Amino acid sequence: MDAAEFRRRGKEMVDFVADYQENIEHRRVYPDVEPGYLRSMIPSEAPLEPESYEDVLRDVDRVIMPGVTHWLSPHFYAYYANSTSFPSILADLLSSGIGTIGFTWAANPACSELETVMLDWLGKMLQLPEDFLSETQGQGGGVIQGTASEATLMALLSARLKTVKCVQESDPQRSEADIISKLIAYTSEEAHSSVEKASIIGGVVIRMVPTDEHFSVRAETLEKMVAEDKATGYIPFFFCATLGTTPCCAFDKIDELGPICNAENIWMHIDAAYAGCAFICPEFRPLLNGVEFADSFSINPNKFLLVGFDCSAMWVKKSADLTRAFQMDPEYLKHEHQGSGLVKDYMHWGIPMARRFRSLKLWFVFRMYGLRGLQAFIRKHVELAKTFENLVRGDNNFEICAEVVMGLVCFRLKGSDELNKALLKQITRTGKIHLVPCTLRGRFVLRFVVCGRTTELRHIQEAWKHITELSSKLLQNLFDHEGKEN
Amino acid sequence: MDAAEFRRRGKEMVDFVADYQENIEHRRVYPDVEPGYLRSMIPSEAPLEPESYEDVLRDVDRVIMPGVTHWLSPHFYAYYANSTSFPSILADLLSSGIGTIGFTWAANPACSELETVMLDWLGKMLQLPEDFLSETQGQGGGVIQGTASEATLMALLSARLKTVKCVQESDPQRSEADIISKLIAYTSEEAHSSVEKASIIGGVVIRMVPTDEHFSVRAETLEKMVAEDKATGYIPFFFCATLGTTPCCAFDKIDELGPICNAENIWMHIDAAYAGCAFICPEFRPLLNGVEFADSFSINPNKFLLVGFDCSAMWVKKSADLTRAFQMDPEYLKHEHQGSGLVKDYMHWGIPMARRFRSLKLWFVFRMYGLRGLQAFIRKHVELAKTFENLVRGDNNFEICAEVVMGLVCFRLKGSDELNKALLKQITRTGKIHLVPCTLRGRFVLRFVVCGRTTELRHIQEAWKHITELSSKLLQNLFDHEGKEN
Repeated sequence: MDAAEFRRRGKEMVDFVADYQENIEHRRVYPDVEPGYLRSMIPSEAPLEPESYEDVLRDVDRVIMPGVTHWLSPHFYAYYANSTSFPSILADLLSSGIGTIGFTWAANPACSELETVMLDWLGKMLQLPEDFLSETQGQGGGVIQGTASEATLMALLSARLKTVKCVQESDPQRSEADIISKLIAYTSEEAHSSVEKASIIGGVVIRMVPTDEHFSVRAETLEKMVAEDKATGYIPFFFCATLGTTPCCAFDKIDELGPICNAENIWMHIDAAYAGCAFICPEFRPLLNGVEFADSFSINPNKFLLVGFDCSAMWVKKSADLTRAFQMDPEYLKHEHQGSGLVKDYMHWGIPMARRFRSLKLWFVFRMYGLRGLQAFIRKHVELAKTFENLVRGDNNFEICAEVVMGLVCFRLKGSDELNKALLKQITRTGKIHLVPCTLRGRFVLRFVVCGRTTELRHIQEAWKHITELSSKLLQNLFDHEGKEN
Repeated sequence: MDAAEFRRRGKEMVDFVADYQENIEHRRVYPDVEPGYLRSMIPSEAPLEPESYEDVLRDVDRVIMPGVTHWLSPHFYAYYANSTSFPSILADLLSSGIGTIGFTWAANPACSELETVMLDWLGKMLQLPEDFLSETQGQGGGVIQGTASEATLMALLSARLKTVKCVQESDPQRSEADIISKLIAYTSEEAHSSVEKASIIGGVVIRMVPTDEHFSVRAETLEKMVAEDKATGYIPFFFCATLGTTPCCAFDKIDELGPICNAENIWMHIDAAYAGCAFICPEFRPLLNGVEFADSFSINPNKFLLVGFDCSAMWVKKSADLTRAFQMDPEYLKHEHQGSGLVKDYMHWGIPMARRFRSLKLWFVFRMYGLRGLQAFIRKHVELAKTFENLVRGDNNFEICAEVVMGLVCFRLKGSDELNKALLKQITRTGKIHLVPCTLRGRFVLRFVVCGRTTELRHIQEAWKHITELSSKLLQNLFDHEGKEN
């Protein structure tokens, strides 16, 4: 395919994407396919000779689309969103078209520098303390990670190295392995599974901190655990706070946890993957109070800021904590400005060495929406969630299971877990809307997250109507069944 | 921006990308910018109100392009390539447009299943043993990682867990921390820096294995080191072989190393990021003989198979080795088919939980080029490299520093490192072509990699002419200078 054909096919693909998104609400949001459906639909080997583009595109409709979970559908209320937008898609197309790879500054100066400045822009939108910004020429700065999992892992690994070095300073005889075997990390029992995964990768023990009645980690709980562990010879070194947990969007009390972490030399990382995006609205910013105590902080613009996956923004107070952990400079990656303090070689800031030109997505989206446009988007989602909450509260068969702060509503039928599982199964099988569950205090709960960029009031009302229709049938069956039994 | 505007802007962007690539060879391949050039060219904060798309696009030309290292230019001969192509860009646009995120099968069945089948297609193109394929319903299978660094890290971490479990089976009292402190990994002194980085992340010792006169790791060297380390109480557990090293594209002798690793219970991972792609050509396939001894193997289609970054294909013989290391199943990620053995939840196969729909790039490229088209592309690059090698050999001022097997030519001016550094500095400053250096046996060497999809014979000839013009001046200066001194 040469450039001339690409012009034609590319424009067709733009229309294909536009058509897809314009008509997405008429598709079944959760696919009706069985495991292994795809293999039998395509050959078992790559073709020897080129095929026609028409055949490939036809197969997108025939093979791919029936098996897609439509994340961009207004009927999609699962997980947290991939909140992409057209400007983000354009920026990604540009990134693919330039085809550059970033790792050192020299590999693509524009890629490295735009990333630095965009993280400053976003940091200011969030009113982060100056310590976290690059423009102040201090020790802090931002970086784009692929996912929040990687941000958490980088924070934990950096904390591990920092603590090992710190312990060895006062006790030079002690081996790294011995110190690591005594390290202990903490996170909320409500935290994302990636925190536990990071501890396994890092080879350190992790303890889950119980939460209060609002599903928040509180200072006294952590304080007590830290004291216990120190008494038995452990070295508390890392606490991952969550702002906006995955199950119910709960918020750890970082303003009271931060001082403890600082006093105990515990690295505090804040995982605010979803909710952190909303801190660009002044009314939500108080939830971030205490960030000044953190060593690192991350949010996922791809969850709630109209930027497509993958884009996880991470800030650290002392970037050397990250970079010195993994600094490696083979000859083929050296360049004349390295070590000058003037440039950022982001390869030292993350797990993968290379990176796409992802800051373009942030730049396009920030400029095409403006801060006010992004705030309006977030507020609309929160308002729609409040509407759904009110619908649930107005129905005596249902209960709300956690405070609704942003775009997530946790709810359930009053009754058994089995009843709620049956309801979710019906919802999934019908495929008109898509939800996933969570467990709260041992109970099976349904999560309803406003996800779509194009989700409107009518979709919320339709979704609720659909849920109550399915639940009414279930309750009727249950009633009939119980009637027969009695 | 609504769908109607996206149709217009998207088509403009397609033309922008086509124009960029059609005219790329007239651009200065390595940018002439100073560190920090970008910050002063744009505002220090995000705009409050939306800006016009015209302004954003104008700034791509004004702000971004002057600072881009043009990886897709036919004058780009640095690192290894980002070998993207138009079908790959189209597939990526489709992926952005669908906007789905994969982690479990249920998050997007098509994404999970196409990935599985595409890794089988590619595995067959490489004539991998059946153990590595999913279609045989055995224990093996493939996965797309973002980068080779992640593939190596996953292999090392899986090997770590496997060895810990194995040691504990015979010695249940021994702690995980104690075992890890005794683990020892090996890789070539010529291996990519990401192998050492993986060992640091994994908290294990790594030893660099000296290479023979062809820069290859040989069996007897590894065997000797393993014996030494076992004698002092270490537990050899991981060997990362390289097929196509970054400095000079050397090949470890996996057919003789594999049996040793198998006998010693050492996990053998093969990092064939660049060169592995060429094994789809029968004439290069013998270099992969011995893969049957490997536990895992990875190549980067984004380096040499016309697929855009990021796309690193990895195969494992026993997928449970990978997945059991990190299996975590919170309620919100459960689905009805998990654990059925019928589906793949790729979140357990890598560091990040979530993934883009990257298999579309493989599908589009394999079908639009066909196996023969891809083979032809690789052969053309190898042929161009041989042409460059012959030009170098024909000039008495220069020497070839390593055998030219694929698209990389390592060469230098006969003379001091300083002379060669001066030559590279001139090349970089002039900006007509772009190379990076390496160190071979302590000497400073220039690497010339055929990278561009559109690189032709005339570009190679021009590049050589340019290099010899610059070197002639340097040599003349040196001669004059020495003349004066004498």
